[in-house]
Amino acid sequence: MQRAELQQAYLDVRRMTVDLCRPLATEDYVVQPIDSVSPPKWHLGHTTWFFETFVLQSYTPDYRPYHPLYSSLLNSYYHHVGARWERARRGALSRPTVQDMYAYRQAIDDRLLAFIETVDAARWPEVCTRVVLGLHHEQQHQELLVTDIKYILAMNPLRPVYHTSPLTSSAAPVPEAQWLSFPGGTYDIGHTTEDFCFDNEQPVHRAFVEDFVLQSRLVTNSEYLAFIDDGGYGDFRYWLSNGWDTVQCEGWEAPLYWQKLDGTWYAMTLAGWREVEPHAPVTHVSYYEADAYARWAGKRLPTEVEWEVAARLADVGPETGNFLEDGAFHPLPVRQSSGALRQMLGDVWEWTGSAYLPYPGYRPAAGALGEYNGKFMVNQMVLRGGSCATPRSHIRITYRNFFAAHERWQFTGIRLADTAWTHV
Amino acid sequence: MQRAELQQAYLDVRRMTVDLCRPLATEDYVVQPIDSVSPPKWHLGHTTWFFETFVLQSYTPDYRPYHPLYSSLLNSYYHHVGARWERARRGALSRPTVQDMYAYRQAIDDRLLAFIETVDAARWPEVCTRVVLGLHHEQQHQELLVTDIKYILAMNPLRPVYHTSPLTSSAAPVPEAQWLSFPGGTYDIGHTTEDFCFDNEQPVHRAFVEDFVLQSRLVTNSEYLAFIDDGGYGDFRYWLSNGWDTVQCEGWEAPLYWQKLDGTWYAMTLAGWREVEPHAPVTHVSYYEADAYARWAGKRLPTEVEWEVAARLADVGPETGNFLEDGAFHPLPVRQSSGALRQMLGDVWEWTGSAYLPYPGYRPAAGALGEYNGKFMVNQMVLRGGSCATPRSHIRITYRNFFAAHERWQFTGIRLADTAWTHV
Amino acid sequence: MQRAELQQAYLDVRRMTVDLCRPLATEDYVVQPIDSVSPPKWHLGHTTWFFETFVLQSYTPDYRPYHPLYSSLLNSYYHHVGARWERARRGALSRPTVQDMYAYRQAIDDRLLAFIETVDAARWPEVCTRVVLGLHHEQQHQELLVTDIKYILAMNPLRPVYHTSPLTSSAAPVPEAQWLSFPGGTYDIGHTTEDFCFDNEQPVHRAFVEDFVLQSRLVTNSEYLAFIDDGGYGDFRYWLSNGWDTVQCEGWEAPLYWQKLDGTWYAMTLAGWREVEPHAPVTHVSYYEADAYARWAGKRLPTEVEWEVAARLADVGPETGNFLEDGAFHPLPVRQSSGALRQMLGDVWEWTGSAYLPYPGYRPAAGALGEYNGKFMVNQMVLRGGSCATPRSHIRITYRNFFAAHERWQFTGIRLADTAWTHV
Amino acid sequence: MQRAELQQAYLDVRRMTVDLCRPLATEDYVVQPIDSVSPPKWHLGHTTWFFETFVLQSYTPDYRPYHPLYSSLLNSYYHHVGARWERARRGALSRPTVQDMYAYRQAIDDRLLAFIETVDAARWPEVCTRVVLGLHHEQQHQELLVTDIKYILAMNPLRPVYHTSPLTSSAAPVPEAQWLSFPGGTYDIGHTTEDFCFDNEQPVHRAFVEDFVLQSRLVTNSEYLAFIDDGGYGDFRYWLSNGWDTVQCEGWEAPLYWQKLDGTWYAMTLAGWREVEPHAPVTHVSYYEADAYARWAGKRLPTEVEWEVAARLADVGPETGNFLEDGAFHPLPVRQSSGALRQMLGDVWEWTGSAYLPYPGYRPAAGALGEYNGKFMVNQMVLRGGSCATPRSHIRITYRNFFAAHERWQFTGIRLADTAWTHV
Repeated sequence: MQRAELQQAYLDVRRMTVDLCRPLATEDYVVQPIDSVSPPKWHLGHTTWFFETFVLQSYTPDYRPYHPLYSSLLNSYYHHVGARWERARRGALSRPTVQDMYAYRQAIDDRLLAFIETVDAARWPEVCTRVVLGLHHEQQHQELLVTDIKYILAMNPLRPVYHTSPLTSSAAPVPEAQWLSFPGGTYDIGHTTEDFCFDNEQPVHRAFVEDFVLQSRLVTNSEYLAFIDDGGYGDFRYWLSNGWDTVQCEGWEAPLYWQKLDGTWYAMTLAGWREVEPHAPVTHVSYYEADAYARWAGKRLPTEVEWEVAARLADVGPETGNFLEDGAFHPLPVRQSSGALRQMLGDVWEWTGSAYLPYPGYRPAAGALGEYNGKFMVNQMVLRGGSCATPRSHIRITYRNFFAAHERWQFTGIRLADTAWTHV
Repeated sequence: MQRAELQQAYLDVRRMTVDLCRPLATEDYVVQPIDSVSPPKWHLGHTTWFFETFVLQSYTPDYRPYHPLYSSLLNSYYHHVGARWERARRGALSRPTVQDMYAYRQAIDDRLLAFIETVDAARWPEVCTRVVLGLHHEQQHQELLVTDIKYILAMNPLRPVYHTSPLTSSAAPVPEAQWLSFPGGTYDIGHTTEDFCFDNEQPVHRAFVEDFVLQSRLVTNSEYLAFIDDGGYGDFRYWLSNGWDTVQCEGWEAPLYWQKLDGTWYAMTLAGWREVEPHAPVTHVSYYEADAYARWAGKRLPTEVEWEVAARLADVGPETGNFLEDGAFHPLPVRQSSGALRQMLGDVWEWTGSAYLPYPGYRPAAGALGEYNGKFMVNQMVLRGGSCATPRSHIRITYRNFFAAHERWQFTGIRLADTAWTHV
Repeated sequence: MQRAELQQAYLDVRRMTVDLCRPLATEDYVVQPIDSVSPPKWHLGHTTWFFETFVLQSYTPDYRPYHPLYSSLLNSYYHHVGARWERARRGALSRPTVQDMYAYRQAIDDRLLAFIETVDAARWPEVCTRVVLGLHHEQQHQELLVTDIKYILAMNPLRPVYHTSPLTSSAAPVPEAQWLSFPGGTYDIGHTTEDFCFDNEQPVHRAFVEDFVLQSRLVTNSEYLAFIDDGGYGDFRYWLSNGWDTVQCEGWEAPLYWQKLDGTWYAMTLAGWREVEPHAPVTHVSYYEADAYARWAGKRLPTEVEWEVAARLADVGPETGNFLEDGAFHPLPVRQSSGALRQMLGDVWEWTGSAYLPYPGYRPAAGALGEYNGKFMVNQMVLRGGSCATPRSHIRITYRNFFAAHERWQFTGIRLADTAWTHV
Repeated sequence: MQRAELQQAYLDVRRMTVDLCRPLATEDYVVQPIDSVSPPKWHLGHTTWFFETFVLQSYTPDYRPYHPLYSSLLNSYYHHVGARWERARRGALSRPTVQDMYAYRQAIDDRLLAFIETVDAARWPEVCTRVVLGLHHEQQHQELLVTDIKYILAMNPLRPVYHTSPLTSSAAPVPEAQWLSFPGGTYDIGHTTEDFCFDNEQPVHRAFVEDFVLQSRLVTNSEYLAFIDDGGYGDFRYWLSNGWDTVQCEGWEAPLYWQKLDGTWYAMTLAGWREVEPHAPVTHVSYYEADAYARWAGKRLPTEVEWEVAARLADVGPETGNFLEDGAFHPLPVRQSSGALRQMLGDVWEWTGSAYLPYPGYRPAAGALGEYNGKFMVNQMVLRGGSCATPRSHIRITYRNFFAAHERWQFTGIRLADTAWTHV
């Protein structure tokens, strides 16, 4: 990549982050209502710290940090880089202020753009790779910004609105889901091109999968409501043991942000308090709920290998999906009705039945950046496909997202799968 | 009291609250680093809600609240008034914003001042009493505002400064504490005049006290340092059992906000990070620490009856104490050296050895305001005398403050007492 | 006291402890269903350890302990004596076995009785005092044994029975409670005779009390049921704030061990599952419940000074009370109907409205035994009068028992008081 | 299977359970030192309840339970069967007594053996299958009995001994581990024969595995000590993020039961307190530790597919392994030195890098027994091969055991694997 091209990419990504924060009041930047949700001003700072630490500091002799304490305040989880402010206490800090964080962004932007100009040719490929990693890192935090902002606003009884553009409700019901068949066999799994990918998408390796079927679209709210109305949240038979404990302990009766008033289900969206749209994909469900729904429906969730094989065979791409740049900030009803595989990319992350584990032959990078992905490979489930809060240029069919089975503040949803073979 | 006089008192108190917040950044208004510390914007709203609820709403037929949800968000603990937002979750709310809270204050100020004009004469005494209660309530929250702001800034590793006026360090050491004798006997205890007092200061009743002695001034940092240097925090013999458990569990080694660097003790003050001033009264100690210090010194804390008897006999008054209006926001070395009783009012709240219990014959008021004090009369200890964060017009020698034995974010300190009689 | 007399007293007390355990299965000696309830085998060992540590070890040069680890396993809370096995983990230890504990008792009994024979005359008074303290200590643990055994059996769904002797239900209702008046004034409070007392009952000191009235008998189950039936557990107005939180959090709807089946209240007793006897004193109530009941009744609890003054003026003694030796193991309906003060000693410990604090001039003993009482003087309430699980020879009108306000596994109950004077 | 044959198998398995408990004192049967460890008397009862519920009750019209409350007390986790006593509270119950549990066993044994005689031929196959399941269930609890007894004795500072037979220390060091190669390809995975297996071992399905290598024997204590001595427990680089948090939070410095005294490592075994035997396999390590050790060694753990493929190709069987019946109750140094795959079955369960998930096409049974395995398939890791506490007749190469990543009170150990191919 050329220097000017990288500078432009850098400016574009950094601007998007700032744009996403524009609707916020200063107070919205500060709070941390639950441990998983970071204050937006922390995201502003952390993404900047990433560039300062892993580019400027790494490649500048005698680099003098912008502020002596920012590294400990803005480091997320990199033990290599030193002590860190406790994650669950981010919302306890009123300083640095929002304005401080914007000033920090500006200063590092200036330094980084200048640094790109001056880095010598021998170092360029390595530096370029590192900056691109930083941009993908920032795109991940753009998604978290959207979901964290949603949580901050949606848990507030005053029901603040992030953006006012209406969610157009589709008059016509969405087409019935169709079962699409995919042939079993041994497939190459993982990221094969020269383009950027995270280390957890590699190495490419072979995996065998039996014949399987996938539904042509995501599960809708109206389908999920049938599960609720059938007493799904009150019947242990559909639930994993941990899931049932969670349902009982948390008092779950519906997806996150849903509330029933006078017999009608409403939900908080980033456009405010809305009646649940029956044809839109269900979202903000945990793995436990996705798995229970599938069991209730007599089906199952796809494995990540099945999902990737299907996506590759159907040649799905991000062009037409509902992504961050589309500005809906909410999953939308499927638009087309042919028998093709729809909504694979965008709208909602699809829970798979696969645990988040290293691919065969996986080795994390040396040093601090080796902590990026590898150390989280236990007790989490894989999600695929991106969401309405994912930047379009950030997603790939090999992309592996991961969350703990009880988490539901991300735009997570469900696609059904089934096995198409008989045991011998 | 005349209407104009009350209006002026109202304006004065309300203005002081706003003045105290002037040094804050918007972000400082929002956070709640521990459950006991409320966000400053909550204090702004809650004190306003008190007037709206207990004056405007109580005396206006068909009163229409300023906002339908503010009551549940700003009610502290009055079950009579309805549901409440959970105390420990105040810092999770970014809205209402700071600006919203100031607008709310302005609107209620306007309504209340107008209401005072128009209330009919028959109701006037009752309304006047209620408004005066509201003003004392707001003064209590002024003290909490100062101590909560201190916590918010002091726990922040960036060490933000609230005000820059220097704490003048007294070159000369303070005079030795003298032991002043007070005769035992049966005394009237409680508030006797027509002036305002809280219900917990009444009824006046008789109490017997044996001969006792009190120290002429507060315990200083340098005296407390001798306890630390003698291993006081590591020796169970000086501690109540609960206190020792707290010391172990919390890892206490000094008062709150103290930190030792290269052999020197520093502390966060509202004027920033300072070397501990040896001659200033020790502050931010829990009851456990006050009691342990006294035990180490071979003395004890005074009872609240002893404290009140001594204050009455010595005829101490608030005129010369170090209070909120003096703007030091920190206890100061004793100024005079005669053998009189010094520093009884102002500087720091003095832990007594008395549990917070109802006076004989105590009856709380009917209705919601009966919840003001009475329901907290268990598992707390009484403190007397006010502090550098107490408004001068708020304190009395009969004033009973109370906190749990482990709390230390208030300006709390120590005066030693002893028994001056021999068992038969 | 003569040596033979002390030996006899020792044998009597030690035998009572063993007798109390006779109905137990081995398994009953082992469990610790909640932190406050110690396994009976621990009580057997701990009371023995007390004699070994504070008599044999203290007065025997080069004393060789019975077992090198028993001190750490059987020390309750004496920091002076060294490390201790964590209290909440007593029920995790299957060894030492019950048989080990009985062997330990026998061995220490042998050593102690021999030691009494041989101690020289100069040391005799001190040793005698120490042994007597050990006997009172063991009597305290006899009461705890009974209440801990009750908890262990009562929480078991199989409802095991400790003794089969029937609780005779009194056909006739108990007499109405009468209000007895006591004159205010300055009284001597505390233990005045040469007999044994704990250090917390001294020094004798003067206290002033205003005129007051006490009810002639304890509050009965039928009276307490009126509070329940009136919705007392569901109305915040009767409760201290901490009490109300406890009621909500614990889901309390009645005293401990009560359960409602088909409209009738039953309770576990040591004689098994029984219908609640309306005329018996209510028991197993916390301070919060006692206080709430009194508030509902428009009365209050007595202070400990009032209680002691009334007991002294009425000259009550332990002769006729319902104590451990009577073998009922449950409070009984009041037997006589005259206007005298009844049930002051025995039946149930009476919650007072007084916090457990040192008497004026109190100084704990030096060394380990100074930890016996003094270090617990915070966050507890005083109870007076002993219970059906207290040995008759153990109680005095100056005796101060103390528990935290939420605890209710002891035989605790209620006597109402009121103020008989008018504020000036 | 013939009736007599099943009766004999039943008697054999039931007798082994009782034999395992013979060394226990009554008290050892009662305690539950941590939530995961059940009181041995509960195991005695629960295994009996399994036969009563799933055989006698299921196939006898109008079956009258042995005791009306035993089902709720002895049901482990079967929601279908009704309410259950809380797992973490099993150690709070002194009753039913140990004798009660043995009487219950005897009664159900009598009923079951009689029932086998009389069941009609049509039902026989189904009943036989159910009884066999019950026997395998009881064998699982035999292993838990051993590990729970070990925990109960090992956490006791008195260091009780379960059996006195010496662990013979091998004078000669064990042979170096060799790397054995296994060819990649598509393999059938899962249980293929007619013999008993659990539902989680099916259906048989194909899986692709790349070329891999396995070590010929288990990792020894001396190898693991090199990891410890190299600072492995203090270096975050070797640990999963959750694992590092656990190490910090729990203060782990070595496997469970290890303690260092004067520079030498000791460990509690069922034969008492012993110096750590360098040539024996390391055991009582969590998944986190197994994974960290492998990472430190520059290797990895095998996947469960690799493990099963290797075991099948090497044709390993349970004949020569170190199992429950051998009575060592501890893993032993490898006996032979040829390059064959050793210690695959017996000694210790081998952590795999595979999450416990359903096999493709898996469907749990209908009804209560469908809860046996399926509902636990999240947040656990698979272990393979059985241990010194596993009955020899219970293990298979397709057997899937599973525990959470932090658990280490089972006999768990480590075998290293590596990848033998290069990414394209």
